[in-house]
Amino acid sequence: MIVILKQDPPQKKIDELLHWLEDFHVNINIVKGAHTTILGLVGDTSKIDIESVQAKDIVESVQRVQEPYKNVNRKFHPDDTIIDVHGEKIGEGHFKVIAGPCSVETEAQICQVAKAVKASGAKFLRGGAFKPRTSPYAFQGLRAEGIELLSEARKETGLPIVTEIMSLAHLDLFNDVDVIQVGARNMQNFELLKELGHCDKPILLKRGLANTIEELLMSAEYIFAGGNNKVMLCERGVRTFETMTRNTLDISAVPILKKVSHLPVIVDPSHAAGRTDLVKPLSLASIAAGADALIIEVHNDPKNALSDGAQSLTPEAFDTIMGDIKSMASYMGKQL
Amino acid sequence: MIVILKQDPPQKKIDELLHWLEDFHVNINIVKGAHTTILGLVGDTSKIDIESVQAKDIVESVQRVQEPYKNVNRKFHPDDTIIDVHGEKIGEGHFKVIAGPCSVETEAQICQVAKAVKASGAKFLRGGAFKPRTSPYAFQGLRAEGIELLSEARKETGLPIVTEIMSLAHLDLFNDVDVIQVGARNMQNFELLKELGHCDKPILLKRGLANTIEELLMSAEYIFAGGNNKVMLCERGVRTFETMTRNTLDISAVPILKKVSHLPVIVDPSHAAGRTDLVKPLSLASIAAGADALIIEVHNDPKNALSDGAQSLTPEAFDTIMGDIKSMASYMGKQL
Amino acid sequence: MIVILKQDPPQKKIDELLHWLEDFHVNINIVKGAHTTILGLVGDTSKIDIESVQAKDIVESVQRVQEPYKNVNRKFHPDDTIIDVHGEKIGEGHFKVIAGPCSVETEAQICQVAKAVKASGAKFLRGGAFKPRTSPYAFQGLRAEGIELLSEARKETGLPIVTEIMSLAHLDLFNDVDVIQVGARNMQNFELLKELGHCDKPILLKRGLANTIEELLMSAEYIFAGGNNKVMLCERGVRTFETMTRNTLDISAVPILKKVSHLPVIVDPSHAAGRTDLVKPLSLASIAAGADALIIEVHNDPKNALSDGAQSLTPEAFDTIMGDIKSMASYMGKQL
Amino acid sequence: MIVILKQDPPQKKIDELLHWLEDFHVNINIVKGAHTTILGLVGDTSKIDIESVQAKDIVESVQRVQEPYKNVNRKFHPDDTIIDVHGEKIGEGHFKVIAGPCSVETEAQICQVAKAVKASGAKFLRGGAFKPRTSPYAFQGLRAEGIELLSEARKETGLPIVTEIMSLAHLDLFNDVDVIQVGARNMQNFELLKELGHCDKPILLKRGLANTIEELLMSAEYIFAGGNNKVMLCERGVRTFETMTRNTLDISAVPILKKVSHLPVIVDPSHAAGRTDLVKPLSLASIAAGADALIIEVHNDPKNALSDGAQSLTPEAFDTIMGDIKSMASYMGKQL
Repeated sequence: MIVILKQDPPQKKIDELLHWLEDFHVNINIVKGAHTTILGLVGDTSKIDIESVQAKDIVESVQRVQEPYKNVNRKFHPDDTIIDVHGEKIGEGHFKVIAGPCSVETEAQICQVAKAVKASGAKFLRGGAFKPRTSPYAFQGLRAEGIELLSEARKETGLPIVTEIMSLAHLDLFNDVDVIQVGARNMQNFELLKELGHCDKPILLKRGLANTIEELLMSAEYIFAGGNNKVMLCERGVRTFETMTRNTLDISAVPILKKVSHLPVIVDPSHAAGRTDLVKPLSLASIAAGADALIIEVHNDPKNALSDGAQSLTPEAFDTIMGDIKSMASYMGKQL
Repeated sequence: MIVILKQDPPQKKIDELLHWLEDFHVNINIVKGAHTTILGLVGDTSKIDIESVQAKDIVESVQRVQEPYKNVNRKFHPDDTIIDVHGEKIGEGHFKVIAGPCSVETEAQICQVAKAVKASGAKFLRGGAFKPRTSPYAFQGLRAEGIELLSEARKETGLPIVTEIMSLAHLDLFNDVDVIQVGARNMQNFELLKELGHCDKPILLKRGLANTIEELLMSAEYIFAGGNNKVMLCERGVRTFETMTRNTLDISAVPILKKVSHLPVIVDPSHAAGRTDLVKPLSLASIAAGADALIIEVHNDPKNALSDGAQSLTPEAFDTIMGDIKSMASYMGKQL
Repeated sequence: MIVILKQDPPQKKIDELLHWLEDFHVNINIVKGAHTTILGLVGDTSKIDIESVQAKDIVESVQRVQEPYKNVNRKFHPDDTIIDVHGEKIGEGHFKVIAGPCSVETEAQICQVAKAVKASGAKFLRGGAFKPRTSPYAFQGLRAEGIELLSEARKETGLPIVTEIMSLAHLDLFNDVDVIQVGARNMQNFELLKELGHCDKPILLKRGLANTIEELLMSAEYIFAGGNNKVMLCERGVRTFETMTRNTLDISAVPILKKVSHLPVIVDPSHAAGRTDLVKPLSLASIAAGADALIIEVHNDPKNALSDGAQSLTPEAFDTIMGDIKSMASYMGKQL
Repeated sequence: MIVILKQDPPQKKIDELLHWLEDFHVNINIVKGAHTTILGLVGDTSKIDIESVQAKDIVESVQRVQEPYKNVNRKFHPDDTIIDVHGEKIGEGHFKVIAGPCSVETEAQICQVAKAVKASGAKFLRGGAFKPRTSPYAFQGLRAEGIELLSEARKETGLPIVTEIMSLAHLDLFNDVDVIQVGARNMQNFELLKELGHCDKPILLKRGLANTIEELLMSAEYIFAGGNNKVMLCERGVRTFETMTRNTLDISAVPILKKVSHLPVIVDPSHAAGRTDLVKPLSLASIAAGADALIIEVHNDPKNALSDGAQSLTPEAFDTIMGDIKSMASYMGKQL
């Protein structure tokens, strides 16, 4: 850790700071310039809260040398993590497509979509039971019933189910779910993350609209800290000034996450763009950038969907795109 | 609602759309151009989900004419809402300062700060019991014990207490709290908002780091929808590319929120800037822009604070700034 | 054009507005609701300045139905534009790589890099003679001499040269340049764009750091308006809150630009990321998303480069990546 | 300057780096940790290009301790700079309002507005002769003729004139202008800044839509480097995701610029908000935050303005707001 002091600090203040730092048992190297004094802290600085150092009145700025994330850091865990759900693997060269409607609406709808996406090659079924909606007057999802319908669809197709949790009060309802999704708006719902750290299910963690890549990793770190190391990271677009897309897909996040962490990286082209015509190019780009999986919205009847119809593909359109996706995945040396 | 159709849509598709719209009992006015067809929907369009219309394959774009928020909309509730906590009023010309430490640390600390800020003229005590921290390894707050200590401080000073809730699982612990704060990261934790809609306490709702002003109003709408109309809106900075401040205070949000809604508007200059030297100018600017209250971080010993020390004022510094704040508030015709 | 009026406007004001609009010879359709009045303007509305309408005191909001760009709009020019420089084609399936150093430094350096990138398969040589630097104390480029050295390199390798113009005062110096680049900071230097509209050279127009896709198209429209229709659009990253990359590559801009315009689309992965380790994944992703060309920084000795060394590849690293790029381009059906 | 090396760098590479650094005659302090090595460079590091250091293959990251701006830095020039135009002072407690139309349209219009704003207390007349417009089809300004009309208005009112330059090719036309404005889109038009560094007129430098406060200061540094130290900095809003305002006024920039630099700081509430109803609250907030001047758009007939009508005040509205502005300025201890 590097601590840069304000110009010409009184020696007394420096001594106080050094004294305070001694308790952390790190080696302190002092670099004195004409006006500037710099402290180089060496050793295990993870116990030192960077904000506390920043708060000292003679401190100009502080910079970490080591990353604040440990468990998800590839430095300390060089091998790729593989998420295996009933034999369907994601990570370390195993590529999968997760598909399904934004919202579960009826048994007929979810089963029809499930069969269709399975036929096209999707290996996981997604569907929203609890729906985060900006407006309290919009459809909020079938909730508990939606999860039952997803189980029905799994019974009929064998596809593991992925669905979003919005509150730890609902956790019991997710016993039967295969992969629990944490949505962008809950990426920093730390109490929820702590709870998910104690369960034994894979977590699909979506990046928040205005969260940095490091913050996404720190949220994954919360889940690991609880003992659950089955985490998949999902890039789904960040919020910018651009209005032609709902969000701006941060494609660079894919290779960066693959480099600094060992977790599988998923891309959600449907939410990133908010328009069906971009799903194909963004899917291919994501695979080319190194993504381990895609999560795509498919609806049997988009124009009558209860939510996100504008970004949902028809099963026919999805089937065509899946051809390109599978081909690109093999081209990139992925196992399907 | 304005629905713009794609170029030269087949009449059959138009008829389908018109037929679908009839169920909503709105008057439909058709504007036909050379290539463009526009539908003007008149009447109560609040039941029509804009996304569902957007999803129709012949629809180019959709635009609402009425705002999506109703209960918090000044159009339907012209008079200012006043939040009254044991006689301390916020709104409609009543101005207050909420002050206290980022985190409650010890009884001595919180009581000392409470007495100090009260002496300087603060009318509410803030303090974090449950702390949302980016890192699982950072201090997470005293939690339940923190709330007890806040009550102690209230007993000693009479100041109503404001503290943040991070999970509806903790709701019972907040029975004794005067104002429940919803932090920026939970602004779209809709399950929490719904629950708070059923309780009878004032809610201080902070704007998310990347949420629009309209989204903030829609989150307040969630609380109203549950029956709780005691909501205060708080601008605390949005995330931008600028690095000299922790966040960018969106000062324009203050007059806009005052204009389109009837709710009190609070500004948090401490979190917006993340640096103590900006607390005074941003506080004065916020009052000048029409804010009804300020929430400011004060710590008896910032350089040893367990969190946010860098943006916490000493009681002495706070006392000086309070002089300027009170003077500016009276200059702006506010009642203290 | 859709004009939404404020609630219950006085008839006199409406009549004034209608009278004012008549001069534009468009058909006006009036949609009257309980409180809302909407005007649907049909016909050639391109002469109507949206801001002037917005300024009318009874106007709530205005929305265009047609895009404001005409010449670069695929609707009016369905076929792809091909840029042909001495037989080297970009666009309509023709894919090329433009490579070279950030700054031209010496004849030896530029010629060495030119030979190297040519050997690896690059078909254009890039190099900065005039350098836009944030600091007046940083190396500003060799300027006129730099352009001479680029010509030398072209003489030795036959590669057409691409270099950036920073002021129309330098235009004469660019007579011998094959492709004139307009940098991100000058994307809205309208006087420069107008001048470039009168010259007969291909223009490589880079998107500004905070400019929308539509603004990029409008800047291209400036060049077309002057009579020059040889424009290539370049996505090079936009500015966001993310700090792990210099900028955030807006990969979605590639398929959108290809869809709404007929111009070739180039991606600059070097400037977007600002780090060499992302050049390969972002290059592959860009091709997968439909890019017609890439512009990549290569330096014979990055660690002693006078600018942008951190994002410049060595010729060896570039040669390896070119293998992957060529293979991906053919996979995507591009002609090299 | 702090140089953090990558983990376990080979000694040979370290020696090369140290050897390279020796040429800059700075003292180098080496801090060695278990895996990390840090170099603390002390002395005059202004000659060392941070990018060149960053480019060294064993360098992980580099951080400056001193600010990159010198001439505009308050550290090296503690006293406020005062800009004096024919006796009208801005800075060091002298507060002024600059007002006028977005575009100069006719002699009658500009003279009428000039007289009106003078009567209300404005001390400078603003008006656009050269207009940067997103669309080539929008009104581009009266150009040379516009400057003549501004001179006419000055003759009639005595108000010094402020107008924007868009190209150094027009510089001769500005001989008769009192203050030359550099617009947001040209903030990093470095060739223009260099030229303005050689002229003897005050420059009103506007912050770019996506430029940091530090970049604004570096652009001012360009003008100083040329020998012209008459620079005023203008905050006019940055681009964010918020859509209720045209831009987001970064109010924090005002106190920060006043603190780190000695230059006068101006705020443009008209362009920041893009709506007249926010001009008053943003003006008062800016003064409360420490602004030395305001630049406000006023048009005799906004609803028929050729540009920016939506954000232009009528002379009557401006007169009312001026009352509040003058009162707030005196309240803040400014001299009018």
